[in-house]
Amino acid sequence: MKKAILLFAHGARDPEWAKPFEHLRDEVAGRIPGTTVQVAFLEFMQPALPDALDALIRDGVCEIDIVPAFMAQGGHLKNDLPKILDAMRDQHRDTQIRLLPAIGDVEAILDAIAEWLVGAMAG
Amino acid sequence: MKKAILLFAHGARDPEWAKPFEHLRDEVAGRIPGTTVQVAFLEFMQPALPDALDALIRDGVCEIDIVPAFMAQGGHLKNDLPKILDAMRDQHRDTQIRLLPAIGDVEAILDAIAEWLVGAMAG
Repeated sequence: MKKAILLFAHGARDPEWAKPFEHLRDEVAGRIPGTTVQVAFLEFMQPALPDALDALIRDGVCEIDIVPAFMAQGGHLKNDLPKILDAMRDQHRDTQIRLLPAIGDVEAILDAIAEWLVGAMAG
Repeated sequence: MKKAILLFAHGARDPEWAKPFEHLRDEVAGRIPGTTVQVAFLEFMQPALPDALDALIRDGVCEIDIVPAFMAQGGHLKNDLPKILDAMRDQHRDTQIRLLPAIGDVEAILDAIAEWLVGAMAG
């Protein structure tokens, strides 16, 4: 059964903005061989999230996990994203589209940030 | 010598948006007793970064580390932040204002995100 992970990022006009997400994509892909890992965007950059989902589903992927690569949940995640997902789930009832927590809502990640910061202060 | 850390976040209209940064602030403060740790914002939320810096300096803080709590560097970090910091350094020549990397540029943090994500996929 084909699976995919979509890292959902905001997007920006500056092409360099995407680098951390591309790095993260490569890190994750290296750790889960056989799972497609891609970055998709809300605005400014391509692919947009609905296009990325469509392409994966056309390619036969039937389980897609979406990870909001956002530090915090504002209107984009609370309003825009659920609308996009509802529409996609309506159109593709045989595909399991799962939404994971935003990375800023994951305590283990906040702990890792705190740990790095404390080390950087000491250094 | 009084030290402080400022977590610099974008800000949003939704008050709940700030929660991950407040959690991070508390985590870091708990690990470095004696160092003031605060969140400051670019827009929408208070305090704005220059106001937070002014208040710390008035309070006698002479070393301030600023950590951009951003996943990626766009115009806000590349253009807006250096201007704010240049102006603050000009006004407060006796204060050491240090800019740390944005959290999305820290490999250890991206590794932690990747590790969590791989675990979440398996779970």
